[in-house]
Amino acid sequence: MTLRQELERIGREAKRASRQLVMLSTDVKNRALEAMAAALEERQDEVLAANAQDVEVARRRGISGALLDRLTLNADRITEMAQGLRVVAQLPDPVGEAIKMWRRPNGLWIGKRRVPIGVIGIVYEARPNVTSDCIALCLKAGNSVILRGGSEAIRSNRAIFSVLNTAAVQAGIPDGAMQVVGRTERSAVTILLGMTEYLDLVIPRGGEALIREVVRSSKVPVIKQFKGVCHVFVDRAADLKKASEIVMNAKVQRPGVCNAMETLLVHQDAAKRFLPSMVKRLRDAGVEVRGCPATRSLAAGVKRATEKDWATEYLDLILSVRVVPSLDAAVEHIGQYGTLHSEAIVTEDYDAAMAFTERVDAACVYVNASTRFTDGGQFGMGAEIGISTDRLHARGPMGLEELTTYKYVIFGNGQVRT
Amino acid sequence: MTLRQELERIGREAKRASRQLVMLSTDVKNRALEAMAAALEERQDEVLAANAQDVEVARRRGISGALLDRLTLNADRITEMAQGLRVVAQLPDPVGEAIKMWRRPNGLWIGKRRVPIGVIGIVYEARPNVTSDCIALCLKAGNSVILRGGSEAIRSNRAIFSVLNTAAVQAGIPDGAMQVVGRTERSAVTILLGMTEYLDLVIPRGGEALIREVVRSSKVPVIKQFKGVCHVFVDRAADLKKASEIVMNAKVQRPGVCNAMETLLVHQDAAKRFLPSMVKRLRDAGVEVRGCPATRSLAAGVKRATEKDWATEYLDLILSVRVVPSLDAAVEHIGQYGTLHSEAIVTEDYDAAMAFTERVDAACVYVNASTRFTDGGQFGMGAEIGISTDRLHARGPMGLEELTTYKYVIFGNGQVRT
Repeated sequence: MTLRQELERIGREAKRASRQLVMLSTDVKNRALEAMAAALEERQDEVLAANAQDVEVARRRGISGALLDRLTLNADRITEMAQGLRVVAQLPDPVGEAIKMWRRPNGLWIGKRRVPIGVIGIVYEARPNVTSDCIALCLKAGNSVILRGGSEAIRSNRAIFSVLNTAAVQAGIPDGAMQVVGRTERSAVTILLGMTEYLDLVIPRGGEALIREVVRSSKVPVIKQFKGVCHVFVDRAADLKKASEIVMNAKVQRPGVCNAMETLLVHQDAAKRFLPSMVKRLRDAGVEVRGCPATRSLAAGVKRATEKDWATEYLDLILSVRVVPSLDAAVEHIGQYGTLHSEAIVTEDYDAAMAFTERVDAACVYVNASTRFTDGGQFGMGAEIGISTDRLHARGPMGLEELTTYKYVIFGNGQVRT
Repeated sequence: MTLRQELERIGREAKRASRQLVMLSTDVKNRALEAMAAALEERQDEVLAANAQDVEVARRRGISGALLDRLTLNADRITEMAQGLRVVAQLPDPVGEAIKMWRRPNGLWIGKRRVPIGVIGIVYEARPNVTSDCIALCLKAGNSVILRGGSEAIRSNRAIFSVLNTAAVQAGIPDGAMQVVGRTERSAVTILLGMTEYLDLVIPRGGEALIREVVRSSKVPVIKQFKGVCHVFVDRAADLKKASEIVMNAKVQRPGVCNAMETLLVHQDAAKRFLPSMVKRLRDAGVEVRGCPATRSLAAGVKRATEKDWATEYLDLILSVRVVPSLDAAVEHIGQYGTLHSEAIVTEDYDAAMAFTERVDAACVYVNASTRFTDGGQFGMGAEIGISTDRLHARGPMGLEELTTYKYVIFGNGQVRT
């Protein structure tokens, strides 16, 4: 079988299975998810053995610490994956929900009903847990899923898939509803992303280069999760104690993620009271601070920030700081350098809070809270498949609802149009 | 100025204006729409003079009856356009609506707020009224709009645009919120559809060739409105009187539109009672009937339907008819040949109705009503910018809500993530 034929087969089977998935009861899906969790724990030795091989190959290729850490599984991580499947089993089923229903003057009842999207492709890098997360979320939302992971994790992904798929099929999930692309050729992705007759959506999960590559080559719609250059703006009317806690949390609690703060903006009327101690606290926590001239004149040990700093997602214990003359200037700075991800204002001024939330264009706009809350779990969605920086279909944290679409179901008793 | 520079300027201005549009009050938008309607009526001579030039050029180029009819404006059509603007003024403003709001255990209030998409490009063919319809809908939903019409209507579109834009700016709409691409080079479309930094969405309005061309060359997300190969399935348990009325309406009332029926499916248990008189009634109304062997054996004057017929959108007084052994077979036929547009079942059987609405995958699925109701006006949306045959973001009739997205606005009092 050629590569194209194999991918065509995968696509066709996924599409066929998706037609059956639509009609599956919530019970069957939930019991399958529970069975998959149990199977993952029971058969963890197989998964860990396959993963050890991946890790060994990666090590020989000289892959570095952080990447190796992401690739490596252990008993705890397997338990986390199983737990993730159980959490999704407990979430409400989005499929079939009546989003709206209304009656027209001619007696027609028009219902807007939530339905699965169909077949979703996931292109991702070397985190084996993505395999189980995506399978769980797509299955619960009634979608078939086609997974294409990085070649470094190929053995781990195949093993996880095999365990989950066997358990799922035994529990009544149609064969073909979940698929892994086992071939490692680069061209497999391009072929996959051209199969508009089978795939309805592609979600890339990984670094910016991966996402740009998927966007460039895909003929299937893509939901993009780009980087977060997130800001906290400390307004003139900020409670400086709250501001200090929020700034520390947004920068230090977990700097390597997209919802961490990269730039701190401070209203000039608050700068003198706020920045000296704030910078000291940040530096004491190991943060390298890069500032505008005003920041450097107010606090010690601040490096000079360049134009490039304002646009950089450090994902590290580095922070750029800028003093701005007004809320307008803060909004403008965010409009210029922000990435439509997460933006926060700290203020006790009602009008400032309202103006900021109205005028800042981002998936998540915060008043007096840390940007770190941009997360499906924190929002109460239970789990997430990512954080969209797009404007269409889904924005911000994407959970089960965002993996669905809708159809109109119209009930009449003989109505015709005049 | 080169073509690219000119388009860049248009994009930049539209983007800038869109930032101001977000904050415009409903009142300002509505008063602008009323002023635009009045201006269109007052200055109709300018529009009609420009249109007469377009019509004259088209006639000299030998353009045919139906196309020429679509291009031609008169006083009545101008009044209709003005009326369309007034209808949109009266619709509720979608911007700012709180779609949901909930409180998290940590006290955060998370609100999902409806906001404009940003800048919307419309690529369309020779219907000058599309210019005013799209301007009205995009403006009311808080979006900037960039219009690129066909070269045949270029003078008409420029004239309509000039009248509307002048009135809008006088009424407080930011300059740049509506734009027409005045250049007729084909490459203008390709450049426009590559401007991902300014455009957030493209909606092509026109024939299949135009839509395919836009999809092929666009780097901006596209919402597609493809053809409708719509079916009516007359179940074994159908009320045959209702069935006859629905079939006539779906086929004959306006055959040239996407929500008209193209194929009639009849359950074999109803075929003998239903088809002889139904075919006669259709033929009496001037419909050419093409049927499967069973249909031809039951009714007179039926031509042989070929495989190609099942996949054809006639947009004409032609109907293909197939007798099917079961509801399952009807669902399968629709799955194979349907275009995810509008599908109807006629039945008095509750289970059959439920099975059909669950299993048929289409934007609009009807029980005992004509497919002709797939329309923003008929659904109560007031106006529509088209009918999506896509699955993402919007499906079926698209009104003001479908021209918006959302953002999360989160209110805290110092929450940080632990």
